[in-house]
Amino acid sequence: MDAPAPNPVNLACPVPISRHSEITIGHGGGGKLTQDLIDRIFRRAFAHPALEEQHDGAVLNAAGVRLAFATDAHVVSPLFFPGGNIGTLAVNGTVNDLAMCGARPTWLSAAFILEEGLPLETLEKVAFAMGTAAAEAGVCIVTGDTKVVERGKGDGIYIATAGVGLLEHGLAIAPSSIRAGDAVLISGDIGRHGMAILATREGLAFESPIESDCAPVVAPVMALLAAGLEVHCLRDLTRGGLATALIELAESSRLAIGIEETAIPVTDVVRGACEILGLEPYYVANEGRFVCVLPEDQAEVALKILSEHALGYPPARIGQVRAAPAGAVILRSVIGADRVLDRLSGEQLPRIC
Amino acid sequence: MDAPAPNPVNLACPVPISRHSEITIGHGGGGKLTQDLIDRIFRRAFAHPALEEQHDGAVLNAAGVRLAFATDAHVVSPLFFPGGNIGTLAVNGTVNDLAMCGARPTWLSAAFILEEGLPLETLEKVAFAMGTAAAEAGVCIVTGDTKVVERGKGDGIYIATAGVGLLEHGLAIAPSSIRAGDAVLISGDIGRHGMAILATREGLAFESPIESDCAPVVAPVMALLAAGLEVHCLRDLTRGGLATALIELAESSRLAIGIEETAIPVTDVVRGACEILGLEPYYVANEGRFVCVLPEDQAEVALKILSEHALGYPPARIGQVRAAPAGAVILRSVIGADRVLDRLSGEQLPRIC
Repeated sequence: MDAPAPNPVNLACPVPISRHSEITIGHGGGGKLTQDLIDRIFRRAFAHPALEEQHDGAVLNAAGVRLAFATDAHVVSPLFFPGGNIGTLAVNGTVNDLAMCGARPTWLSAAFILEEGLPLETLEKVAFAMGTAAAEAGVCIVTGDTKVVERGKGDGIYIATAGVGLLEHGLAIAPSSIRAGDAVLISGDIGRHGMAILATREGLAFESPIESDCAPVVAPVMALLAAGLEVHCLRDLTRGGLATALIELAESSRLAIGIEETAIPVTDVVRGACEILGLEPYYVANEGRFVCVLPEDQAEVALKILSEHALGYPPARIGQVRAAPAGAVILRSVIGADRVLDRLSGEQLPRIC
Repeated sequence: MDAPAPNPVNLACPVPISRHSEITIGHGGGGKLTQDLIDRIFRRAFAHPALEEQHDGAVLNAAGVRLAFATDAHVVSPLFFPGGNIGTLAVNGTVNDLAMCGARPTWLSAAFILEEGLPLETLEKVAFAMGTAAAEAGVCIVTGDTKVVERGKGDGIYIATAGVGLLEHGLAIAPSSIRAGDAVLISGDIGRHGMAILATREGLAFESPIESDCAPVVAPVMALLAAGLEVHCLRDLTRGGLATALIELAESSRLAIGIEETAIPVTDVVRGACEILGLEPYYVANEGRFVCVLPEDQAEVALKILSEHALGYPPARIGQVRAAPAGAVILRSVIGADRVLDRLSGEQLPRIC
């Protein structure tokens, strides 16, 4: 690293959740505060069984055809970063949510909120990046909307995408299908997206530049399903990283997940950058990585398939589902010590996606 | 009116379109500049036949099931206004886009972009209003996302909704189905949503308060279809009002539309407020009104059905489609003079929805 030490990163929000009466940056972090908002407001206001699944998208029955439906708002700052931009993120974010439902992503919508004064050239770059990303993921952007807000009421571009995908199998891929004894696989190395954004934002330069892992995960997911594997659950590792994703799965399934620190793929440059900044890679956001939970006896075949579609570091078997303690994720460290991973209270890296 | 005269309203943007190199407020107005943005950037970047239909949503074939898919971003200011709020608008905006495709709106997604400092109580009010509006429209909010931006990078709440609906008939309801000789019907009085927002924003008080017409139009549309009427096209009268909607239909169908000023329902209070402010009600936004284009010999039955579901002023037959001049909308005034209606160049009332 050849840049001055950055400002310390605020890893946790010290204010108890119940004392908040207004939205804080932490409510957008994907951690405890986001969950609190969902539980206290959205689940009550929109009561629906699909929301109770606490999955990345909703699986629905449309006159006998099984569909997945998902949405994501994107407010990443800066708009452009190594390995992608807000447009590629907006496409891949929703595409991957659909894939996590076991659906083949098919159609996307795009709603833009633009700030007065945004150069048209910037919008054009982002829109064409979206077109390219959509083609790579095999989806079509078929409908959209554009709104403009006054200078100072936005931040260049915000994009909300929604997507519809088709389920071509009979599996119930959801947290409720997870069973004790299942293997937990990861599709590649973690921490690159978050560190790429942080490095760009703070003007840090590492020995090797860190590129975001932003990518569609459609191909590996479709390959797992085409092989007839009994996939129990899939989850992409976005805001809150691997740790938050696994905690969500453990809580929703009322099971425990044990993972091995030595098995989790992290590149040396990401590990080094995290150490310098006092961050744990398990909590850093990714945009092209997922975990797959399936019966232990199918883990080897699944790993082979994931290897064929690996977009970076090779995939790995990182742990196993256990019967108890319900809701806990237990990390066995390099030296063999066990530690329970907790949700972040607040926001580690705001506006990461 | 018992308030001081408001600031003059900027009806048009004097800068030629080709000279813009950055986003202006007018690009969000739904008029010429919005169309320019769609043509110059989005249609090129996202090339897809569904976009070429220039309809309110896309009609898609999902393994043999016909679906409609639509999205809207909502940035209305203020968040609460007489007759609704950003939440009811976000639900009805997308619900009505689906209905305009002839679909029964079924599922919605909701993506929130919240500004740091927003009172949780405000979010709660908006979310519960969305839940109620969804129930009234017969749709379920099944998936969502929440992001938070720093103070000064948003304006309280922005909401992007997307929706999926099912088509339960074999009609092609789209501008390309419009035929010369078709009757043009309107579902109720115009101008209330725009005037309600403007009055709230500018602190105007009229003799009778103007309430937004914000409402779902599902029931009248489903009733028209259930009666077996051969509906050629539907279009809701949002940004840019009746005039812009009809111009879009005339341009897309390469036909002309003649309308009678005396036939267009406008309440006295809206007409009076428009006169004082120098606005034409034909360009003022609505959120619960639509035009229906269908064969002349079915107009009477259709009007009877629309009357049974009228949410305010009675529906009316306002004109007829003509073979030429292609793309023109001709308004015959009270005194019998013909005038071609043009798209607004810029933005009449920013952030109306």
